[in-house]
Amino acid sequence: MKNFSVAKSRRLRSTPYTSRIEKQGVTAYTTYNHMLLPAAFGSLEESYHHLKKNVQIWDVAGERQVEISGQDSAKLVQLMTCRDLSKSKIGRCYYCPIIDDNAGIINDPVVLKLSEDRWWISIADSDVILFAKGLAIGNNFDVEISEPNVDIMAVQGPKSFGLMEKVFGEKIKQLKFFGFDFYDFKGTKHLIARSGWSKQGGYEIYVENTESGLELYDHLFEIGGEFDVKPGCPNLIERIESGLLSYGNDMDMFDNPLECGFDKYVNLETDVNFLGKEKLKKIKSDGIKRKLVGLIIDTNEISLTKSLKVKDDKDNIIGELRSACFSPHFNKVIGIAMINKPFWSLSQSIKIEINSKMCDGKVCDLPFI
Amino acid sequence: MKNFSVAKSRRLRSTPYTSRIEKQGVTAYTTYNHMLLPAAFGSLEESYHHLKKNVQIWDVAGERQVEISGQDSAKLVQLMTCRDLSKSKIGRCYYCPIIDDNAGIINDPVVLKLSEDRWWISIADSDVILFAKGLAIGNNFDVEISEPNVDIMAVQGPKSFGLMEKVFGEKIKQLKFFGFDFYDFKGTKHLIARSGWSKQGGYEIYVENTESGLELYDHLFEIGGEFDVKPGCPNLIERIESGLLSYGNDMDMFDNPLECGFDKYVNLETDVNFLGKEKLKKIKSDGIKRKLVGLIIDTNEISLTKSLKVKDDKDNIIGELRSACFSPHFNKVIGIAMINKPFWSLSQSIKIEINSKMCDGKVCDLPFI
Repeated sequence: MKNFSVAKSRRLRSTPYTSRIEKQGVTAYTTYNHMLLPAAFGSLEESYHHLKKNVQIWDVAGERQVEISGQDSAKLVQLMTCRDLSKSKIGRCYYCPIIDDNAGIINDPVVLKLSEDRWWISIADSDVILFAKGLAIGNNFDVEISEPNVDIMAVQGPKSFGLMEKVFGEKIKQLKFFGFDFYDFKGTKHLIARSGWSKQGGYEIYVENTESGLELYDHLFEIGGEFDVKPGCPNLIERIESGLLSYGNDMDMFDNPLECGFDKYVNLETDVNFLGKEKLKKIKSDGIKRKLVGLIIDTNEISLTKSLKVKDDKDNIIGELRSACFSPHFNKVIGIAMINKPFWSLSQSIKIEINSKMCDGKVCDLPFI
Repeated sequence: MKNFSVAKSRRLRSTPYTSRIEKQGVTAYTTYNHMLLPAAFGSLEESYHHLKKNVQIWDVAGERQVEISGQDSAKLVQLMTCRDLSKSKIGRCYYCPIIDDNAGIINDPVVLKLSEDRWWISIADSDVILFAKGLAIGNNFDVEISEPNVDIMAVQGPKSFGLMEKVFGEKIKQLKFFGFDFYDFKGTKHLIARSGWSKQGGYEIYVENTESGLELYDHLFEIGGEFDVKPGCPNLIERIESGLLSYGNDMDMFDNPLECGFDKYVNLETDVNFLGKEKLKKIKSDGIKRKLVGLIIDTNEISLTKSLKVKDDKDNIIGELRSACFSPHFNKVIGIAMINKPFWSLSQSIKIEINSKMCDGKVCDLPFI
């Protein structure tokens, strides 16, 4: 496939790490929340194998924070998500679908509870700050809403634990999955969560002090030789195999959380107040009409730039493929598709045209691995 | 400067024209409202000269529409902008800064009044739909808010009038600046406005019927030989020389419309209700502290990827440069900068470091030409 350059500008702003990753061999960018997000350092497949064995440092500053503070902050955060946050704890991260009054998904962030009246919404690619502002103004809520100066650096891969221990000591290994706490690096405290957009384990460092963050970035490479540390970025192959959904790719405003398998984050049996609750009750009682599933396809090359129609044996359109890649694990193409009822059952055979060739495939569970 | 590829995906979706422009020689993309927007077809400077003499067809589908309809639609649209729309007319376009309750600029769209209770907000790069939804839900307004299937194709340049007349007949030339109407192409009506993101004259075709739109796209190239028609895109040099501001580049949520020279769209003396009105009254009575101005800089090369500090003769920081290019007209670099009071006066001398070299320059009026 032909390559096209990305045209840089202030509007698609660089991150504090951009000049470093450009020296370290980044080859492709995507954009994310109006920021550059690295998409490749050479071969996706080599990065995939490296990530599954070693440790990588990722510039994911594009995961911006929407900070909501003030007296009505908990009320506003709860209004936006169908996940019951009434028992949420300070120092924990919560994966929370944000939905509108029609139950369409606006974003699928991780919410960090910093204190009873201060929250960070660590967002996927849509301007959640505008939704929050509109709701706060319309409801006359007593809140402050801002985008703080936070640029996340992720440390991902099985050797992330060893590398992080070498910097922050034994206690960083006691941090539980989706917990966060503050850790010292040469006199500066950094908020670090055990999280990240891979299933290979690791941490996300929410860098507020840029100078210290850049020193830490360099330090991780200086001392990381024994762990074979490399620069990297969210890896398309790893995230699809792991069934990590991508907002804008796998789901958007026209999908509801029950279609996307977010059932455990749809808490309809509680008395908390959130948008789309009545709509979701109706969807649940009627039953969903479509569902996100995995597909395994008998071919070995794909480069998806838009959704592709999925058909059954009789050439009826039964859904659409939304993300896909070649999987070294299966030695086939795998992907994530929204499939109509009743064609979403396991092992349903499907057909799909890829690069002008009709390919066979079948439905399978998410995650793939 | 080194080039980096853009990583395509469904999240940064293609437009109906993408496959065509890739055959026609597009070389760089930016992203705009989660869509690919062409940024170059080879040399920016050659495209600039061509645009000023001839006619170009632009894929600007990334200028998405937010459709607001229903009983409270006029109330919601007015709530979002500081421009008084109480006397607005059906069939007209209105440039309207959208601001929040703190008078920060959310977007600077063109608003089209389709009927008394149906509006399109033709947006710059931010998710205005989320702001509108939040406000509508919070205020319990009776409105429908959606993103219709509209993919704008622009016809820009001095020869656009001749080319469009050849397709749509004499009456298209009677359309006044910022007016719109419906015109027939082979049995399909298209909404066409006399507008566009250049100062070289032209039209924007709001394509709702994709099939007919693509036929029209091809037709314009088939019959356009006598006008030297070429594919193109918004041109950085032309738009800076013309003083056309770019949201996210020249201004953002941290700027107010009075700092950006939008005084005539800030209608504080009316009784219409909009967000940020009291804040704007205070800013106006206190006087602004910074202002967007032009800079002419004594150098001939720049490639801006983030803002650069602007200094006075004594090395004090007096503002920041936000957009810039080499201007063939001035044979120097020109740019758009936010400059602190009192350094914004005409011919104020400034200094700025570009590619490790300290350059002299001076403040000038916008537009440059």
